[in-house]
Amino acid sequence: MNKSFDEIIAKVKECGMKKVAVSVAQDEAVLEAVREAKKRGIADAILVGDAEKIGAIAAQIDMDLSEFQIIHEPDMIQASLKAVKLAHDGEADMYMKGVIDTKNFLKSVLDKEVGLRTGGVLSHVCVFDIPGIDRLLYLTDVAFMTYPTLEDKVNIIKNTLPVAKACGLDCPKIAPLAAVEVVNPKMEVTVEAAELTRMNRKGELTGCIIDGPLSLDLAIDPEAAKHKGATDRPIQGDADVLLFPDIHAGNLVYKAIVHMVPGVKNGCILTGTKVPVILTSRSDTFETKVNSMALAAVVAEEMKKNA
Amino acid sequence: MNKSFDEIIAKVKECGMKKVAVSVAQDEAVLEAVREAKKRGIADAILVGDAEKIGAIAAQIDMDLSEFQIIHEPDMIQASLKAVKLAHDGEADMYMKGVIDTKNFLKSVLDKEVGLRTGGVLSHVCVFDIPGIDRLLYLTDVAFMTYPTLEDKVNIIKNTLPVAKACGLDCPKIAPLAAVEVVNPKMEVTVEAAELTRMNRKGELTGCIIDGPLSLDLAIDPEAAKHKGATDRPIQGDADVLLFPDIHAGNLVYKAIVHMVPGVKNGCILTGTKVPVILTSRSDTFETKVNSMALAAVVAEEMKKNA
Repeated sequence: MNKSFDEIIAKVKECGMKKVAVSVAQDEAVLEAVREAKKRGIADAILVGDAEKIGAIAAQIDMDLSEFQIIHEPDMIQASLKAVKLAHDGEADMYMKGVIDTKNFLKSVLDKEVGLRTGGVLSHVCVFDIPGIDRLLYLTDVAFMTYPTLEDKVNIIKNTLPVAKACGLDCPKIAPLAAVEVVNPKMEVTVEAAELTRMNRKGELTGCIIDGPLSLDLAIDPEAAKHKGATDRPIQGDADVLLFPDIHAGNLVYKAIVHMVPGVKNGCILTGTKVPVILTSRSDTFETKVNSMALAAVVAEEMKKNA
Repeated sequence: MNKSFDEIIAKVKECGMKKVAVSVAQDEAVLEAVREAKKRGIADAILVGDAEKIGAIAAQIDMDLSEFQIIHEPDMIQASLKAVKLAHDGEADMYMKGVIDTKNFLKSVLDKEVGLRTGGVLSHVCVFDIPGIDRLLYLTDVAFMTYPTLEDKVNIIKNTLPVAKACGLDCPKIAPLAAVEVVNPKMEVTVEAAELTRMNRKGELTGCIIDGPLSLDLAIDPEAAKHKGATDRPIQGDADVLLFPDIHAGNLVYKAIVHMVPGVKNGCILTGTKVPVILTSRSDTFETKVNSMALAAVVAEEMKKNA
């Protein structure tokens, strides 16, 4: 079980560098991350976009482009389709967003001919390495699915399992979170959390241990679980996956951690696709972009093993 | 403007020790907090509850009860009514929960004859002193109101203003939070955030600056606001009050901060009542209980000034 992002990066090196297709690559932050990922042995990149602009930015940041394959396509939509096709055809192991807007990037991901659909639901998972917590935490969904239904939550859980497995965790403990740890019929999220737990106990949703509803202290803090006397629950402060009620709760917690916890590391990918998709945002740091590529690389390796 | 909990405690000392009525005081953690609050010059306590049990616990923790007034009432409901009446009658400046369950404690707060109703809506505010953030943050509502309507949010904001004022902040910047910083008709919370902002601009809701919807990074991180180009917004990473969409989002962020950010300090009170109410929970630390009393004390002082 990988306990830190350093271990994930070490794992990538073990199984060999992966290849990432970058959609509309003419962006300083993206190129810097791509260069670093190659330097660290995480991923080699195929840069799809406006070759002239890519060249100009590379010159500014003193980046040697001769190490990278470049596919010239000045039109953004066309560039995204060419880039995603590389992943679709198996010429790249993962697909990454450049300066194209999210809407058009997702259109390429979902393209019926050259995209990365698998028939399943797409969801987002963010892996956190938090000082003081002795394991990785998987937060989902903090960025993609807005108001997941019970069925969506089942799919989000299923999408998260291969990510945990890629990080060495065969049977993650999953906490469907709420403000409270008991079912309250006036709070639909607690009812759905209990239903997910029931499905897990009855063998309808396997490969994990689900225990909800859980408040965040009972999910992540063993001392709090002990103090509240939650000694008969399958999760006692040792949850791996934090399943959020909706995108507001998830995104606000995600940003609280990123902006308030010193020394935190995280990487995020979109799952439910044929290959892992890296949907970085403008506000992600350089390290987060590199970590997301490392996460995508171990997930890509896991998917290849099972293909 | 107070920038830390130490400053709040210093302020209490300036305006003189307050008096707290404790509802069902026979609890070790409560008595330890009460003793510490007196030692630090924050509050003197009137202990209402089972005098024999209070005495036994005090002996265990080597606490000198001769410093405190004790009102013997072994019945919990009766004890809560006697304690709340002290606050109702002005014999105590604030009201604090002991080992009585929350439901019955709130019944005493809302009691029509001896309770603390003002005709307004009750809400909860939690004040955070977070390392790396140069001001106090006011989180609301993370513990009391479950699914606030637009009207509830107006009342939550109104309840929060005297708390900010008590901490030296006359015109707080209020961020109605969401996962995104633009209005999306499919996300009711963003529509309501925009409406609160409009009400503030039109002078229908004054004494503060409201700017929403805001994502958490734009609300608290000036660098992120700059990076995302939010330079025309009234709030650019300098929000004071974080208004949450619902109790799940609020409570999960609250617990993420408490359990993940090293060196954080916080205190919480219930507002909208005749005097500040301290609704501590079992999982609150000793420091949080003491800080909550200090916060209640400065708010009580502010309310007296305006009475």
